[in-house]
Amino acid sequence: MTPRARQAIEDAEIIVGYDTYLDLIKALLPAKTTIGTGMMQEIDRCQAAVDKAMTGKQVAVISSGDPGIYGMAGLVLELVGKQPAARQPEVEVIPGISAVGAAASILGAPLMHDFAVISLSDLLTPWEVIKKRVEMAVAGDFVIAIYNPKSTRRTSQIETVREIALKHRQADTPVGIVHHATRTKEDMTLSTLDNFTKEHIDMFSLVIIGNSQTYTANGKMITPRGYHV
Amino acid sequence: MTPRARQAIEDAEIIVGYDTYLDLIKALLPAKTTIGTGMMQEIDRCQAAVDKAMTGKQVAVISSGDPGIYGMAGLVLELVGKQPAARQPEVEVIPGISAVGAAASILGAPLMHDFAVISLSDLLTPWEVIKKRVEMAVAGDFVIAIYNPKSTRRTSQIETVREIALKHRQADTPVGIVHHATRTKEDMTLSTLDNFTKEHIDMFSLVIIGNSQTYTANGKMITPRGYHV
Repeated sequence: MTPRARQAIEDAEIIVGYDTYLDLIKALLPAKTTIGTGMMQEIDRCQAAVDKAMTGKQVAVISSGDPGIYGMAGLVLELVGKQPAARQPEVEVIPGISAVGAAASILGAPLMHDFAVISLSDLLTPWEVIKKRVEMAVAGDFVIAIYNPKSTRRTSQIETVREIALKHRQADTPVGIVHHATRTKEDMTLSTLDNFTKEHIDMFSLVIIGNSQTYTANGKMITPRGYHV
Repeated sequence: MTPRARQAIEDAEIIVGYDTYLDLIKALLPAKTTIGTGMMQEIDRCQAAVDKAMTGKQVAVISSGDPGIYGMAGLVLELVGKQPAARQPEVEVIPGISAVGAAASILGAPLMHDFAVISLSDLLTPWEVIKKRVEMAVAGDFVIAIYNPKSTRRTSQIETVREIALKHRQADTPVGIVHHATRTKEDMTLSTLDNFTKEHIDMFSLVIIGNSQTYTANGKMITPRGYHV
């Protein structure tokens, strides 16, 4: 957490977030009012934050990772935009360490070259749109970072990603899987395009598929920037 | 800067970096040995860091943004990999606030959905490879974040990006331009796909092109995640 994010939490009168994330920062919250909700209640949670801010309170909405990357920043701004113009509270988005950046740091240096970030969650996006993006990212030889690769209910999409990627990339293309990046339960696995879906992947995993130049050495995944070394 | 990055700098005996970045953190460096070099001397700089680390010194190599995104992490790992196995120093990559995340936070919430990150610098990558990636990112309806959009010498590429994007996206697609994100000289401009190349763009700019759903409201650029609000 950056000092700026910490300061914003300390300055706020009300902290709003998913229960699990409130729990992660409870040491910062002794005298705060908190509004916690379960997963899948994003709209209620952000609406509660906007409502409180419209009463004049200083409110912090917390996300894990970067709130500006698949996080709560957009939903808060969308809900603020639905209020009467004169009453819209001011919103400041404070960037954080993204899950993709955290995962990359644990794997080595896979994001030294152009990359695409794709969420496989089809709750809010049609699978055909997601699949097209995977196809284009593979065809463009992007390093591909995958959020929400798999859940208990949703298991086939990551297999489809593997099949699409194998049409253009070598079977031994490095693939990194990171769980709980930068948290205490953090772990990582280096695998290959051919084999990575046999590894443990769940909703806490972030998967990074290398481009045609990515290699592994000494347990690190490296995408060369192109320097002649 | 995260506390973890700050601690690593404080713990290091030698700090290596581009002169401009050393200057940005000089308050942290009173009693440190520093090795600074100009731009375009990345290999010399990272090799010096590796050489010092092989003598047993604790060395910090600093990047702006996230060292794992087009940063120095990869070059350091590549150079370490060329040393005899028994003498290779241990490398820890500490993630930071990426330039793309910082720029997004200033623009609003443009990265709420899948995005591609592309550098237009053709110093280390053939232009044909870059252009293909732009085409694929546009075809996949990715939000597109562009590093190194333009330099004094290199001015035509961003115009080509505009032309490719206009083939698939509306002329009024929002485009955000951010300079010096999170630094004192920070500024941002909201424009459209049709017009953005008329704005000031240089090597300190980061450009974010919206996808087909991105809109602007109250001076903010928002890509909806897809919630029904």
